[in-house]
Amino acid sequence: MSSAILLISCPDRLGIVAEITQFLADHRGNIEHADQHIDEQTGTFFMRVTWNMEGFDIPRSELRTKFTPLAEEFHMHWELYFSDDIPKSAIFVSKETHCLFDLLVKHREGHFPTEIKAIISNHTAAAPIADYFEIPFFHVPKNPRNREEAERQEQELLRHNQVEVLVLARYHRILTREFIKPYQNRIINIHHSFLPAFVGKNPYAQAYRKGVKIIGATSHYVTAELDAGPIIEQGTERISHRDSVEDLRRKGKDLEKIVLSRAVQWHFERKILVYHNKTVVFD
Amino acid sequence: MSSAILLISCPDRLGIVAEITQFLADHRGNIEHADQHIDEQTGTFFMRVTWNMEGFDIPRSELRTKFTPLAEEFHMHWELYFSDDIPKSAIFVSKETHCLFDLLVKHREGHFPTEIKAIISNHTAAAPIADYFEIPFFHVPKNPRNREEAERQEQELLRHNQVEVLVLARYHRILTREFIKPYQNRIINIHHSFLPAFVGKNPYAQAYRKGVKIIGATSHYVTAELDAGPIIEQGTERISHRDSVEDLRRKGKDLEKIVLSRAVQWHFERKILVYHNKTVVFD
Amino acid sequence: MSSAILLISCPDRLGIVAEITQFLADHRGNIEHADQHIDEQTGTFFMRVTWNMEGFDIPRSELRTKFTPLAEEFHMHWELYFSDDIPKSAIFVSKETHCLFDLLVKHREGHFPTEIKAIISNHTAAAPIADYFEIPFFHVPKNPRNREEAERQEQELLRHNQVEVLVLARYHRILTREFIKPYQNRIINIHHSFLPAFVGKNPYAQAYRKGVKIIGATSHYVTAELDAGPIIEQGTERISHRDSVEDLRRKGKDLEKIVLSRAVQWHFERKILVYHNKTVVFD
Amino acid sequence: MSSAILLISCPDRLGIVAEITQFLADHRGNIEHADQHIDEQTGTFFMRVTWNMEGFDIPRSELRTKFTPLAEEFHMHWELYFSDDIPKSAIFVSKETHCLFDLLVKHREGHFPTEIKAIISNHTAAAPIADYFEIPFFHVPKNPRNREEAERQEQELLRHNQVEVLVLARYHRILTREFIKPYQNRIINIHHSFLPAFVGKNPYAQAYRKGVKIIGATSHYVTAELDAGPIIEQGTERISHRDSVEDLRRKGKDLEKIVLSRAVQWHFERKILVYHNKTVVFD
Repeated sequence: MSSAILLISCPDRLGIVAEITQFLADHRGNIEHADQHIDEQTGTFFMRVTWNMEGFDIPRSELRTKFTPLAEEFHMHWELYFSDDIPKSAIFVSKETHCLFDLLVKHREGHFPTEIKAIISNHTAAAPIADYFEIPFFHVPKNPRNREEAERQEQELLRHNQVEVLVLARYHRILTREFIKPYQNRIINIHHSFLPAFVGKNPYAQAYRKGVKIIGATSHYVTAELDAGPIIEQGTERISHRDSVEDLRRKGKDLEKIVLSRAVQWHFERKILVYHNKTVVFD
Repeated sequence: MSSAILLISCPDRLGIVAEITQFLADHRGNIEHADQHIDEQTGTFFMRVTWNMEGFDIPRSELRTKFTPLAEEFHMHWELYFSDDIPKSAIFVSKETHCLFDLLVKHREGHFPTEIKAIISNHTAAAPIADYFEIPFFHVPKNPRNREEAERQEQELLRHNQVEVLVLARYHRILTREFIKPYQNRIINIHHSFLPAFVGKNPYAQAYRKGVKIIGATSHYVTAELDAGPIIEQGTERISHRDSVEDLRRKGKDLEKIVLSRAVQWHFERKILVYHNKTVVFD
Repeated sequence: MSSAILLISCPDRLGIVAEITQFLADHRGNIEHADQHIDEQTGTFFMRVTWNMEGFDIPRSELRTKFTPLAEEFHMHWELYFSDDIPKSAIFVSKETHCLFDLLVKHREGHFPTEIKAIISNHTAAAPIADYFEIPFFHVPKNPRNREEAERQEQELLRHNQVEVLVLARYHRILTREFIKPYQNRIINIHHSFLPAFVGKNPYAQAYRKGVKIIGATSHYVTAELDAGPIIEQGTERISHRDSVEDLRRKGKDLEKIVLSRAVQWHFERKILVYHNKTVVFD
Repeated sequence: MSSAILLISCPDRLGIVAEITQFLADHRGNIEHADQHIDEQTGTFFMRVTWNMEGFDIPRSELRTKFTPLAEEFHMHWELYFSDDIPKSAIFVSKETHCLFDLLVKHREGHFPTEIKAIISNHTAAAPIADYFEIPFFHVPKNPRNREEAERQEQELLRHNQVEVLVLARYHRILTREFIKPYQNRIINIHHSFLPAFVGKNPYAQAYRKGVKIIGATSHYVTAELDAGPIIEQGTERISHRDSVEDLRRKGKDLEKIVLSRAVQWHFERKILVYHNKTVVFD
């Protein structure tokens, strides 16, 4: 049983909700969830609405065409998805595999509607894990000298597997602007700090030096600027003066896993809208 | 600038959202917030929608009449409020005044759209606080022998002041079934435990004896069954073996204040729907 | 480099700390950590002290004998461990394997100083996981008719492998009083509710029916009374009216993993003292 | 019944704990609490020990002299307090009074062992609150032109009232380096962000612009560098895209109150040791 998911943003105007819901009702679309938000500073209207395709009298192939006039009338940016279209994804990972493990277990338990086509790593540590979960593993070593060539190889892999979404599960190589560009709002990263604090390398060591009493983790879409893309989810955890940098690393792992897996789940459930380098995450 | 707030629950059916939003659009009601929820177990539809009364072409006095046909068609339970109708309330308190203080400070800062007509207490501890905040204080002593007479006095006070909502801010006297009856879903209590754990007296002493590692507070509507009414909000806080019962009491105070004040705010913002002894709390 | 860990409880008395620390200093034991707690209600003194065995001038084999006079003078209950004595353990699991997975990944990353000798289950779901982590798996089916025989088989397994500690990682069979008895304070369970709320079966369904706004998980030592043993650790997580029982189950999984793994870690780090059906958990 | 509180930091060495606790036992000092910490990176030992002065056979007036040889032997930095020496304090506040209110209510309930001698403000908003709590109020207007003169007036007030500790309860004027200097680790500030994120002005507006999913509050000792002194306590709270800057401000208030009041309590309970621009906060 398939559902349609419509994500909309447009200038706020009288009657938007009515027009959209009337369009669905006219075609016998039974709304399963509808959520809207108005950003009052910019006068922008956001909506996520899902409805059952069973009984809906517009065939899937004609839906875009039929919805276009309404979308144009309200100057909408819109995205349309179907719950049974399962997007293909790839996970990038380096030496630390706790997030990878957590994603794969949750994926196997059915939490993420995606087909994971590849695990790509600059190390070999994750190879046996990929093997156990029966996902193809690709070792693409990376260093300052071979970066261009390595990224070409990765791009080829992604293209060949029709990968639409990239999850960086503690991947410690910076992706170039060119590599990122075609995947706008489709590369999800986990940074092991409460951003915008402690950007860049060794955030736990930075947090330790600063003497914070709480550590954090942040999942965000990757943009050209390091650790500065739209934030999807954050989590925090108390620490104390007793905790060494190593303790922070250990305590942070559970935080990273939870924060990343929530962001990944919401992305694949099509709950996220990006605007002004921020996110609207519908319930 | 006044808004209308409509709270609806009814059996789920095709086109409900469309009909409601179309009704508003037809009369030039610009939706400010709309949120809906479907309880899939019982097939129940819930909605909260607010719109600007400026420009809305049905006068306030006719709105109920005009909406009734639609409401009947969908077998709705519905409540209609206007943001500039400020309901009257009373706060009941005993010896411990931290919640009372917190509510009065927040009320003064404009957090709760209510007019507090009376502070009623079985002790005199709160009298100078009521005085400082310039709210009439009524001392109504209560003991097993005079309960009937005391409640009659309180009822008279409430009637005389047209009080619609009662907030029990650590009021340590049990209200009778008869007293409660006319105020269904309009008496808000704070219980200093994570309900349903530790019902009744001395929940902190109970928690200490049990050796829990986290304490809680629960705000709920009062029903005839002690500490068992619909839960509005809960909060929790870590403790350790080092904490004495007195420490729990002290740490719990901030928790109680936050949990009660949130419930009170949501109630007066008309964000709460009750069904099956549970609450829907819209964002 | 080995450390000694001493856990003490006794009636509080002048000079206890001085006597113990002087004993260590006299024998050139450099204290790494010392933590004490006094329960004022019962006048009980608790202490955990660890020191470096390098340079300590009492050989390990004579330490118990040498410490006994001091212990007797103060009427101590005491336990002595060495950080390089790695105790043997077994994990019990049923169909749900998320906690098992989490424990095994963390064990592999070095979080728990224990040797896991066996994974025992009344289902076969965990067999491939055990296989991947190279830990012997034992399928011991259990039903009301064969319980006695099944427990005998398990006891034999545990004895044969010299297992000292049992971890119930979502094991859904009740252990008999006789089975539990020899493992006092050495069977760690995870219950998927905020105890003492929602004892017994289907706590998430109970929580859903009650309409709580926060769910919890509790790790405790197993005693003859169901879900009533000394609490080691608890965790909580916000939910809302939007969450179905299935959502609670999903959200609860991360909570269960974190709470159980903390309890397991603290147990093997010898940080827990039990008294009056409660725990002291040293930092 | 008075207790002595000793705070120590020194290079870590064999036998420190033994020497200190033996010193106390020799003089019949019954230890009430003892907590120690070793910073392994720098090899620094920290200790907080409290004991009952009843029965202790060194008179209070000779204690410093008697303890000095031991302190010198171990090259200690040390501070000695008595629980019945109540230090004098002043609260600085600007227009927003929620933290002030919370501190005064908690002070009246006995949470902070201090005598509040003055409330000092660049506005008059807090005057009636000071009046209600019967604490002298001083209005010291401040602008870029009169800063020197204003600070001189404040210094005079503090000196005259023998104030030892300053609490900045949302005081929105920067204190000069000269003003701060004599009060090292004795000026407690609350900053309404999760430091080091969002230093300086309007942190809630900064947080809103950045699109964080969690807001924070930080209490720290004031140093010459803005919002960069040793962190005492932090707290965080979830927000969502629905929250306006005004909502963040409102939600942040409870956070600020809790974080500041904890820091103030710990300071007056003498639980805080500062080193390397960080704090050790004993339980």
